[in-house]
Amino acid sequence: MSTLKRVPTDFAVLGGTPAFDHPLPVGQLYFPSWERYEEAMRGIFERGWFTNHGPLAQELERRFAELADVRNAITVTNATLGLVMGAKALGLTGRVVVPSFTFVATAQAMTWAGLEVVFADVDRETHQLTPATLAPVLDDDVSAVLAVNLWGGTCGPDALEELCAERGVTLFFDSAHGTGVSVGGRPLGGRGALEVFSFHATKTLSATEGGCVCTDDDELASRLRNIRSSYGAGAPVAVEVTGNGRFSEAQAAIALLNLDDLPANVANNARLHTAYTEGLAGIDGIRVVAPTGADESTYPYLVAEVDETTFGMSRDALVGLLAAENVIARRYFRPGVHRLPPYRDDPRNVALHLPTTEHLARTLVQLPIGALVDLGSVERICTLVGAAHRLSGHLVAREAA
Amino acid sequence: MSTLKRVPTDFAVLGGTPAFDHPLPVGQLYFPSWERYEEAMRGIFERGWFTNHGPLAQELERRFAELADVRNAITVTNATLGLVMGAKALGLTGRVVVPSFTFVATAQAMTWAGLEVVFADVDRETHQLTPATLAPVLDDDVSAVLAVNLWGGTCGPDALEELCAERGVTLFFDSAHGTGVSVGGRPLGGRGALEVFSFHATKTLSATEGGCVCTDDDELASRLRNIRSSYGAGAPVAVEVTGNGRFSEAQAAIALLNLDDLPANVANNARLHTAYTEGLAGIDGIRVVAPTGADESTYPYLVAEVDETTFGMSRDALVGLLAAENVIARRYFRPGVHRLPPYRDDPRNVALHLPTTEHLARTLVQLPIGALVDLGSVERICTLVGAAHRLSGHLVAREAA
Repeated sequence: MSTLKRVPTDFAVLGGTPAFDHPLPVGQLYFPSWERYEEAMRGIFERGWFTNHGPLAQELERRFAELADVRNAITVTNATLGLVMGAKALGLTGRVVVPSFTFVATAQAMTWAGLEVVFADVDRETHQLTPATLAPVLDDDVSAVLAVNLWGGTCGPDALEELCAERGVTLFFDSAHGTGVSVGGRPLGGRGALEVFSFHATKTLSATEGGCVCTDDDELASRLRNIRSSYGAGAPVAVEVTGNGRFSEAQAAIALLNLDDLPANVANNARLHTAYTEGLAGIDGIRVVAPTGADESTYPYLVAEVDETTFGMSRDALVGLLAAENVIARRYFRPGVHRLPPYRDDPRNVALHLPTTEHLARTLVQLPIGALVDLGSVERICTLVGAAHRLSGHLVAREAA
Repeated sequence: MSTLKRVPTDFAVLGGTPAFDHPLPVGQLYFPSWERYEEAMRGIFERGWFTNHGPLAQELERRFAELADVRNAITVTNATLGLVMGAKALGLTGRVVVPSFTFVATAQAMTWAGLEVVFADVDRETHQLTPATLAPVLDDDVSAVLAVNLWGGTCGPDALEELCAERGVTLFFDSAHGTGVSVGGRPLGGRGALEVFSFHATKTLSATEGGCVCTDDDELASRLRNIRSSYGAGAPVAVEVTGNGRFSEAQAAIALLNLDDLPANVANNARLHTAYTEGLAGIDGIRVVAPTGADESTYPYLVAEVDETTFGMSRDALVGLLAAENVIARRYFRPGVHRLPPYRDDPRNVALHLPTTEHLARTLVQLPIGALVDLGSVERICTLVGAAHRLSGHLVAREAA
């Protein structure tokens, strides 16, 4: 069995046959069958209504609002733009706190919106922003907090809402990972001033590209719709600036089909996540980090922490070894955003030390999960990781030689 | 013949039968046949590469660069975002001059980019920004000029380049209307620091939504590609901020098919433009404004000026009368952008008087031209306008009654 690496030279990095004959990526990457998409696209061509808040976009907004249990779901070009539009619609100025352990777009959207980004650290166990990691940076100059619901879990939005209300700062959420995730008996969608979901191809619900801004505040929703420039898609209200955040019918067609398949995809993720958890359980130095703060997770990521000393090789060496086997593991989020341009060059960040973010940036790995992965693949990946641990002394020695 | 309105009550506004049984809009609105699109989309589904600088986006960039005779064509989500990204990639700060007679997104993109917008007037005959209308606002606080190539003509980019070079300010172009337009023996695309084209559904080349930033400056192009976040699509260079300006394969598929059909669509526009010019020539108070400053225009708009006194009714009355006939004429650009929020509330704009922009906002009308229009429709529209002029005294009296 080619995937059961018994000696170091069985590994592809040392000349063996790769365990997989094609690359296995991280990310959901689920697409409907061509036949179903074709039917939807035929309808779009028949109607000749290709963009600008068409009937499919409207249907998706209705259905997503229902899923997220929120009054307004406003589809947008992509989640990055959704966050920029959200900040503009909220009229934010000055400083906004963002966890540094997040996808770079969270912070950069705030920069596009003209805000100054202040970085907070995250919790060592959950990887989420918490009242404890937020409080130290919540000074009087902060006007807003953009919290992130990570890994198909949540940051515990209710406790953050309480703290932010106390301090009089606006709280809103980057829920890019959060479609279908519930906490406290309620799905994500209606917390804080607004929540922004991502419909990128790698996300739980894909529109290829796309996003959605959710809010229970009808007036804020009107401002968002006007900023998006979907003429006629809501009460005309004064906004500071409009843009083009339109969501096309082709995007909506994919998202609607994928919404039908969401329960099946979540069930598949949950099965794979369990299989990984069991398969990696016996391997010293590898710890699967389950999504936290959720009643129900959608398991969009398989996140594991690599303890180099115990495992026998570094996280980066493991990622290189897996890549040679066509297992395209990722190192999210690396480095922390406070260590990326332009933020790292800001004098206020040069000496900024966020120990957990920096630790996670060195030790976390994401393994393939999602529509392109099956239980057999998970089993082979776990076997590979186990063999890498068992033979790590030899592998590291051979690589160094 | 229902379209030949002989008496006032023949007009739909006064109870007659509409001249067209379905709305005839302004804008190109050309889409490939479903069969051709289906073939392209099947390929995308087979490859499973749906976004992030895929093979079709790359092919479109190669072909558009050839069409525009420019070293770099960088496809982006939409032209508004392309203008924002352009301003960021150029590192602009401070004040940027924009003609007030333009689509609101020209100015708003600059606002999104954190710049202060200064409005210039345009030329009375051509509607374009010229050295004469630019010079009065080109003070020492201005760092850049965003000129607009309007109506399938140009603003005379070479003369503007000379003036801006003299004054040491960056010049770049909103060429949203400019795909396929040539001047001085060269297509638009490589003038100034960069040019931004629109691939919106109403434009000469449609990707439903979409745009393209063109530049001969390879380093600037690398910055733009990095801002767009198409990883691997260029040399990694430091940029102030990245975003999500990605152009999907579905967008590229439509644009590539439409690029094949561009010559036929331009020829159709030219035929329709000629027919309008001849058909409206004998009507007092209506003057067709041909695209100027171009060796070859693509005739994406039919622009006419209505002289209320001579024509016998106001531009707005004519638009209302035509709308009832299902001829959805438009009033671009109305009002001038300096009279729109947020700009009108800026103390520097409250007293700003731009006589030509304000005159054009009151008098211009655009009539349907493009893929949904044929010669017979143009003839009927011209007949309608002629009858409206002939019967204007009665119509205005009846309406007032």
